[in-house]
Amino acid sequence: MTLKSAEHLKEMGLDNFAPYLMNRIIGRYNKALQAEMLGLGLTTSQMRSLAILSVTDGIMIRDLAVYAVVQQSTLSRALDTLEQNDMVRRENDLQDSRATRVFITEAGRETYDRLWPHMSAAYEAMFKGVGESEKQVFVATLQKMLRNIRKHNF
Amino acid sequence: MTLKSAEHLKEMGLDNFAPYLMNRIIGRYNKALQAEMLGLGLTTSQMRSLAILSVTDGIMIRDLAVYAVVQQSTLSRALDTLEQNDMVRRENDLQDSRATRVFITEAGRETYDRLWPHMSAAYEAMFKGVGESEKQVFVATLQKMLRNIRKHNF
Repeated sequence: MTLKSAEHLKEMGLDNFAPYLMNRIIGRYNKALQAEMLGLGLTTSQMRSLAILSVTDGIMIRDLAVYAVVQQSTLSRALDTLEQNDMVRRENDLQDSRATRVFITEAGRETYDRLWPHMSAAYEAMFKGVGESEKQVFVATLQKMLRNIRKHNF
Repeated sequence: MTLKSAEHLKEMGLDNFAPYLMNRIIGRYNKALQAEMLGLGLTTSQMRSLAILSVTDGIMIRDLAVYAVVQQSTLSRALDTLEQNDMVRRENDLQDSRATRVFITEAGRETYDRLWPHMSAAYEAMFKGVGESEKQVFVATLQKMLRNIRKHNF
């Protein structure tokens, strides 16, 4: 039975296996931003943190780790550096003293504003030749998939 | 102008930004396989190598690095361990003596056969409630996106 399943990926073909395709695409998206990130002295975790905070500021560190898909320990180090460079600040939560919230600073926003045009360009390159309605259908399927497998309510 | 672009991600919303959604989904897919990988003593790079070789055996190491979205140095170490455990073997290419091809062994296939049911289950979980035609449209868009941004002809 396992042999039959193993044959299945071969029959399906890598090019029809969505996790493979998504992995390749995300890999190229990250590579496309690498030069700009290095130029700004940022790691992938730091870039994602700034991008997410630019949208949803003041969230808990544990939620930022989920949004950014980064381990808490890696995220902690990333935030240490961002805080040293005055790009974010951390504050204890008023309700839960063991929890910490992260806020983006003006300098953090400025750095993010320099990154976004490159993120946007990499995003546009990805969707070249994909019409607006095809893109909407695609994103709706992604949202359904994330709801299927996420462990958090966001 | 950069400020305007920065506002754009906020207006679009993270949940409509495909790179974010794909990153979250791939993160959960990898997490879902982690226990099984650890049980078999495999890293993500090793698991991907076995999966790819099960479909397209005997490819060049440099191509395997592209398929698996792993840096060549990381892949080299992954293949060292797989070779020590008799799961793959490397051979110099007949035409190009500087190039190396990788082959999966019987033991490698057996390990992969134990992994695949879990990969398959994680894949099915992802697409729960997504009909066959929606899935086909989704995969076709992914294929178009990969063709847009890939640097290789595969």
